[in-house]
Amino acid sequence: MYCVGIDIGGMSVKVGVVDRDGNILRKGKVVTDVAGGAHKIVADIAGLVKELADPNDRDFVGIGIGCPGAINSATGTVDRAYNLNWENVQLAELLSRHINKPIKVSNDANVAALGETTFGVGRVYTDTIFLTLGTGVGGGIIINNKLYEGNESKGAELGHMVLVVDGEPCSCGRKGCMEAYCSASALIRETKAAMERDKKSLMWEYSKTLDEVNGKTAFECSKQGDKSANRVVDNFIKYLGEGMLNFANIFRPQAIILGGGVCAQGDYLIDKLKSYCKMRNYGFLGTPRFDILAAQLGNDAGIIGAASLIYSMM
Amino acid sequence: MYCVGIDIGGMSVKVGVVDRDGNILRKGKVVTDVAGGAHKIVADIAGLVKELADPNDRDFVGIGIGCPGAINSATGTVDRAYNLNWENVQLAELLSRHINKPIKVSNDANVAALGETTFGVGRVYTDTIFLTLGTGVGGGIIINNKLYEGNESKGAELGHMVLVVDGEPCSCGRKGCMEAYCSASALIRETKAAMERDKKSLMWEYSKTLDEVNGKTAFECSKQGDKSANRVVDNFIKYLGEGMLNFANIFRPQAIILGGGVCAQGDYLIDKLKSYCKMRNYGFLGTPRFDILAAQLGNDAGIIGAASLIYSMM
Repeated sequence: MYCVGIDIGGMSVKVGVVDRDGNILRKGKVVTDVAGGAHKIVADIAGLVKELADPNDRDFVGIGIGCPGAINSATGTVDRAYNLNWENVQLAELLSRHINKPIKVSNDANVAALGETTFGVGRVYTDTIFLTLGTGVGGGIIINNKLYEGNESKGAELGHMVLVVDGEPCSCGRKGCMEAYCSASALIRETKAAMERDKKSLMWEYSKTLDEVNGKTAFECSKQGDKSANRVVDNFIKYLGEGMLNFANIFRPQAIILGGGVCAQGDYLIDKLKSYCKMRNYGFLGTPRFDILAAQLGNDAGIIGAASLIYSMM
Repeated sequence: MYCVGIDIGGMSVKVGVVDRDGNILRKGKVVTDVAGGAHKIVADIAGLVKELADPNDRDFVGIGIGCPGAINSATGTVDRAYNLNWENVQLAELLSRHINKPIKVSNDANVAALGETTFGVGRVYTDTIFLTLGTGVGGGIIINNKLYEGNESKGAELGHMVLVVDGEPCSCGRKGCMEAYCSASALIRETKAAMERDKKSLMWEYSKTLDEVNGKTAFECSKQGDKSANRVVDNFIKYLGEGMLNFANIFRPQAIILGGGVCAQGDYLIDKLKSYCKMRNYGFLGTPRFDILAAQLGNDAGIIGAASLIYSMM
């Protein structure tokens, strides 16, 4: 038995054949022909799937798709995906014209969350929260080994929880969202501000100009003991920790899993977060504590997570 | 067919016989003998239940109990309830020694949430968030007509979501929780502070001394156009609205239902909240909007909600 997992991105579509243990048996990639439109992209995907797996094979049990944007997972429709220039694309239906298998579609962050809990670092848990810290902050909620996407599959917008009323402006139009404090973009913004305040900071050696600042600048210089870098990192930990504690009080997950580039910091990040959260977990004696883990599936998270959409229904 | 709903409070225990349509057929009350301990309280409850309903009647299908504190609903155990002085009380098991019926126990705020969505103002919805604004801010989450209590039934602590990192201190030990801005206690605190800043405010006529200030002071004077009162109300609406929008982005509920004393303000409160939230609902075209409603079941919410625990399993 195997599934095909499809990870649609703005630049390329990755396709993989995934077995019941979450191993990728074969994989391939095709350029996302955004200008060609949805029908062309779906035809390209179908061609690649057929190269990798025989649609007539009864062991091929289904296709899962992770797609950016707003998805109606009940109907397999992409309501809107800005970077694909898609609106109201009936993705599952279009693909089923090429390949007659069960097809499930969900948002890419949700899919990564499900993948990490089914086959990744969270596989020993049943209830997890997944946060991906990138340009924005995406998220996914796993309840009892299943994806919880919110009513009409339009919830789980975990990055758009306001942590600071009247705080930093967010891309969504509100102010003070977690995304505006815990994304890589926010980390870079705060790193630059700290460098402008402290012209002697070690950060000026690590990144010669403000344009060269990236998500590592503050972390790497903090490890060297630079005070301004420490302050940037401590603040980042504080906001991220407060957001995680908020989710803990709502869902009481067994673990919160962090993905995205910032997680390359590994234990340096995770250990600081653990000690921040340890003393601040609301509740009484016996409130279950949550573990904090860095995502494990890396670049394959999208493919494996998409395949998990099918496996999690079984 | 009927159930018995039991609403345990620090002062009294209310018991009612509730039919399949959520009507209370008979009800009674017994003083909560906190000093007598759990066995005594349970014996008192059992006596009252037997007065109201015949345990041998096959139409009597179960008993639901709403209890303050930290509940393990899987086992029917009260892990801790400060105002009952209970710790690790196996409530369902104790009561089943007196009456042999299915017994379900949950936290009182969760039970009120379920009651309002099953039989109250939220009965036309399947997915709701319930917030009760009292001394603290309690909450409940209904997903697909069922109570979602979080992992190990220890989540849904909706009042303990930080809205302002480093903000007002909260009873839970963190700073800036929704409870510290949206409870009746917080409203009273802010009303007093506004009165101290503005000695000419109409609020000094409504409440002659700071000790007389209550949850109505600012609202009633705001209706008369008092500027300081307006500011208190607008701020209260802002924090409550931001908290509600946070829950909307996570759960995308069809409705958010508000209970507690502040809701006596009715449309004056609800209309302001609706207009605050209307323009700030994160998402794209087609994101489902949520309705905002005042709870309807009032003093009977506990009994009816408790009975709903049994009905929602059917």
